[in-house]
Amino acid sequence: MKSEIWMLTLSVAMLAGCASTARPTDGVIALKSARGYHVGGERKTLSGLPVKEIRTNPQAPIRKSDPNGDYQFGQLYVQHFALASPAAKVPVLLWHGGGLSGVTWETTPDGRAGWHEYFMRAGYDTFVSDAVERGRASWARYPEINPVEPEHRTIDQAWDIFRFGPAGGYSADIGKQNAYAGMQFPVAAIDQFTKQFVARWTTSDAWIQGAYDALVQRVCPCVIIGHSQAGQFVYTAAQRAPDKVMAVVLVEPTSALDPAKFDPARVKHIPHLTVWGDYINDSALWQRYRNTAETYTNAIKKTGGTTDTIDLPAMGVRGNSHMVMMDRNSDDVARLVRDWLIKQGLEK
Amino acid sequence: MKSEIWMLTLSVAMLAGCASTARPTDGVIALKSARGYHVGGERKTLSGLPVKEIRTNPQAPIRKSDPNGDYQFGQLYVQHFALASPAAKVPVLLWHGGGLSGVTWETTPDGRAGWHEYFMRAGYDTFVSDAVERGRASWARYPEINPVEPEHRTIDQAWDIFRFGPAGGYSADIGKQNAYAGMQFPVAAIDQFTKQFVARWTTSDAWIQGAYDALVQRVCPCVIIGHSQAGQFVYTAAQRAPDKVMAVVLVEPTSALDPAKFDPARVKHIPHLTVWGDYINDSALWQRYRNTAETYTNAIKKTGGTTDTIDLPAMGVRGNSHMVMMDRNSDDVARLVRDWLIKQGLEK
Repeated sequence: MKSEIWMLTLSVAMLAGCASTARPTDGVIALKSARGYHVGGERKTLSGLPVKEIRTNPQAPIRKSDPNGDYQFGQLYVQHFALASPAAKVPVLLWHGGGLSGVTWETTPDGRAGWHEYFMRAGYDTFVSDAVERGRASWARYPEINPVEPEHRTIDQAWDIFRFGPAGGYSADIGKQNAYAGMQFPVAAIDQFTKQFVARWTTSDAWIQGAYDALVQRVCPCVIIGHSQAGQFVYTAAQRAPDKVMAVVLVEPTSALDPAKFDPARVKHIPHLTVWGDYINDSALWQRYRNTAETYTNAIKKTGGTTDTIDLPAMGVRGNSHMVMMDRNSDDVARLVRDWLIKQGLEK
Repeated sequence: MKSEIWMLTLSVAMLAGCASTARPTDGVIALKSARGYHVGGERKTLSGLPVKEIRTNPQAPIRKSDPNGDYQFGQLYVQHFALASPAAKVPVLLWHGGGLSGVTWETTPDGRAGWHEYFMRAGYDTFVSDAVERGRASWARYPEINPVEPEHRTIDQAWDIFRFGPAGGYSADIGKQNAYAGMQFPVAAIDQFTKQFVARWTTSDAWIQGAYDALVQRVCPCVIIGHSQAGQFVYTAAQRAPDKVMAVVLVEPTSALDPAKFDPARVKHIPHLTVWGDYINDSALWQRYRNTAETYTNAIKKTGGTTDTIDLPAMGVRGNSHMVMMDRNSDDVARLVRDWLIKQGLEK
């Protein structure tokens, strides 16, 4: 049983950039292939709907549009970057959070390489997905297929929820923003960041899980790295395919599983890592999220499992927001995650 | 002036696979970087909307959701694959058609490499984009930002419009589909194909053009390859940035520009290629689309420009649908396009 907080094993030298693991930010990425496609989902036939009259553009004549017929829904989208010579034993799956898409892992809002490129350079095959109804996964008609309307997050809401600063601190005027002192998120690039927001539905969790489970069956064994809302999806995927998931990394999970309803022992052989940023003690919401996640991981630990934590501020690394993979020190945190994966024996 | 139909210069040996240009479907793709980000768009503030009560999942308690605040809209999404050693002089931009996203250019529905991978292997830096309101570009709230509701295409509609078979020939039962004899599109994989359908809006052409123009200013000089609805966007982009666009390739454009409103001479130095599949003579709709495109390209030709056509059935290549880049002979058609680009002096 390894129950210690993993951060305690990290040296100060490592945090200062003197780790033995090379920082993989330069050099060529040699790919065998780069493929994008959809996984999961099903066909549904709609009938009895009135034929509409639409214009395809403002100048076009009105034409009839018959919405009756077949549709696909419930699929996810994934992009597979297969390296010519992977250094890792298994690929890494990158699952984004709520109101976002796989773009989470790409270029940071201030134009640096994201975690997707980091892990490719580190030698991992990657699968970057858009969950059902986000991004390239597409979204189902409502209310005919999905019964409720979509939810669009405002930039104002994101400022508070993503812990860029004290609640109400957002301003479109960068000079008037009230960010936390030492904030690592590039708040001056908030417009660029929020262009990647996508609508979300509050009723599609089961579809999302079904598509993720199908992905795991198709492409794993693997490591899954998830962010925020992905907590429940990653933990459930591991419960349902404990032979396919070699390690679980959750960056600031906002949901987890009830240990009374899931069997923690079923995943005790799968090392679990959780990463937390700064300012959580300033937020009752975030204390609740962290407590929920730790209730689940502590239950795994009690059965003899490995559950480690990278608590950045406790390690002296201050200023990380909820969007750790976009923060100014994103490469440094990626390196900590990678070093943990190496410690689990996941590189050749 | 080169006004001949370019197909006439192609030899039969070339079509049979004996071209001097190597078929670039194997080997390593050496990337300098793989970046995804958004271009264009703007911020809008909404106010005076009622606060809603929502559940974030079926088990969650009802919570308030305030839709008042700032949003981004009107941006496109683009993924830039930068080769370590490009063979082409300029990158290629790949612009999809209506109701689709950049996935058009990725893995074919039956699992083969798409044109995106083809052009990377051929030595072109690529920019694969999702137009405004498609895929990872995200879409704006309606009716508050975009005034009208979205349009979702049925599989039934697509069967007819994409010329997979005679009108009304779609069936969810593959054995009962009525496809054209010799159809090159992998109709047995129609479910996989239609998972990539995305909703479209009939009112956002100006936003789409604005974002595309911003992309051209940012990443060109370049070649633009567009499909279907992209016709008007590609032709307009060339008119607006004739110094940035080195060549234009349209695969089955469904829209073009009115030569009376645009100056054909402004783009006469830019070689234009148009690619047409089979069964167009069976469809009044497609004859009209082709006529619209040729009215514009013929006007360019009259000013002394280079406007070539790859008319596949006229070359003896039968069975191509509207989704040429997914048809079974997609690599062969990509090779014809690439050979035309080489002829224009666009490779080193």
